[in-house]
Amino acid sequence: MTERETDTPGPTLEGLRQRLVEFAAARRWEPFHTPKNLTAALTVEAGELLEIFQWLTPEQASAVMADPDRAHRVRDEVADVLAYLLQFCTVVGVDPLTALAEKIERNELRFPAPGALAEEADVNPEDAS
Amino acid sequence: MTERETDTPGPTLEGLRQRLVEFAAARRWEPFHTPKNLTAALTVEAGELLEIFQWLTPEQASAVMADPDRAHRVRDEVADVLAYLLQFCTVVGVDPLTALAEKIERNELRFPAPGALAEEADVNPEDAS
Amino acid sequence: MTERETDTPGPTLEGLRQRLVEFAAARRWEPFHTPKNLTAALTVEAGELLEIFQWLTPEQASAVMADPDRAHRVRDEVADVLAYLLQFCTVVGVDPLTALAEKIERNELRFPAPGALAEEADVNPEDAS
Amino acid sequence: MTERETDTPGPTLEGLRQRLVEFAAARRWEPFHTPKNLTAALTVEAGELLEIFQWLTPEQASAVMADPDRAHRVRDEVADVLAYLLQFCTVVGVDPLTALAEKIERNELRFPAPGALAEEADVNPEDAS
Repeated sequence: MTERETDTPGPTLEGLRQRLVEFAAARRWEPFHTPKNLTAALTVEAGELLEIFQWLTPEQASAVMADPDRAHRVRDEVADVLAYLLQFCTVVGVDPLTALAEKIERNELRFPAPGALAEEADVNPEDAS
Repeated sequence: MTERETDTPGPTLEGLRQRLVEFAAARRWEPFHTPKNLTAALTVEAGELLEIFQWLTPEQASAVMADPDRAHRVRDEVADVLAYLLQFCTVVGVDPLTALAEKIERNELRFPAPGALAEEADVNPEDAS
Repeated sequence: MTERETDTPGPTLEGLRQRLVEFAAARRWEPFHTPKNLTAALTVEAGELLEIFQWLTPEQASAVMADPDRAHRVRDEVADVLAYLLQFCTVVGVDPLTALAEKIERNELRFPAPGALAEEADVNPEDAS
Repeated sequence: MTERETDTPGPTLEGLRQRLVEFAAARRWEPFHTPKNLTAALTVEAGELLEIFQWLTPEQASAVMADPDRAHRVRDEVADVLAYLLQFCTVVGVDPLTALAEKIERNELRFPAPGALAEEADVNPEDAS
């Protein structure tokens, strides 16, 4: 996370969320932005991010940001996923940061870190989410 | 976005990103967290969010948060999508807020708001992203 | 399903599956065709099919095949989804027709048709799959 | 594709498509089976198939059918993907076999097999679909 090179504060999640609200309102796109349409769009964009990686070897995938074209596509699809997630959260009234904080707390109980308990947990990411 | 009811500051995106890094490290899950695996997981979780809505009528979808079970599932899947997006961004070194700010700027040029220009634009969400 | 207008037999699923095997072999693409990559590609293509519909109203969606461009995209994405499904089935050794026949049998038990039993079932597609 | 062990003919794609039509009709699920809902369901199920593989190493993924639980899930998700694809094709009036045959023909022109032309093609699955 070393992209920001200046001392000026970067954009905030809430600021971006608000800009997306204004962007859609100015284009009268709100009628399209139903919860169902937005989750469909979110899934489609996540698929487009996955598409960049689908045929890559692990080595190619690790070096994805060294290829300027792929790096641009990655940033573009990350932006699309985050945009639709924020727009979805706006229309259903969910705070994504609170939702994630609560999920991390549930997962910390569900998957105790090895060493955190007398009896070491054998946890696997396959069981999560 | 009316969930927070206290004056205590809520979680920040960067704080949650860091907690996810520590969570994975404590469980030694980093080897699983390749860019390809994380984009796959992101797409799967986006699909799980979509699944909640797939058979709902527009009316049912709009009222999704009035059903406590569905509301919990929505928050849970929003958290999963955001978690995998942040973990992906960490491993590829992308700042999601900067990526989204840049995308909004590109889209403001690409889809001028009606009234913003002498010649009104005929824009449609189908052309975006 | 009225597309075939001649008496010549159309393509068969097994014939197409075999052509896909030969197509990949001739281009030496088999190393890319791992189960994981193929399920990723399948999901991406399903997302591209969904993308056609994501902003459409129910009326527009019902008339999708009346628009030649959209109709072509629909056929193209259906083909991609089926292609990756068949290629996946080839590499893992699953017969998709047998798998589907067995699933239908399980679902017939799980979701009894109303009227099929003395006590009418209240079934909902939300519970299926 | 060695699953069928008897001489009795296995199920056909058209026969299964028809059974799915009858299954939905008997449960009065047709109103739910809009093109948009069915492509959403297709994407969700493709994601569930991908989920089985998302954290697996290439070795684990190759051996997926040796694990009875995973093998059952794979067959189940293959069936779901094929079911929703067939139901989608029914409602939009597309013959999936014809669509795939046409796509293969287009791809044979677009990605000439090495050796098929004087000038060898440098083709890559990344360019396909």
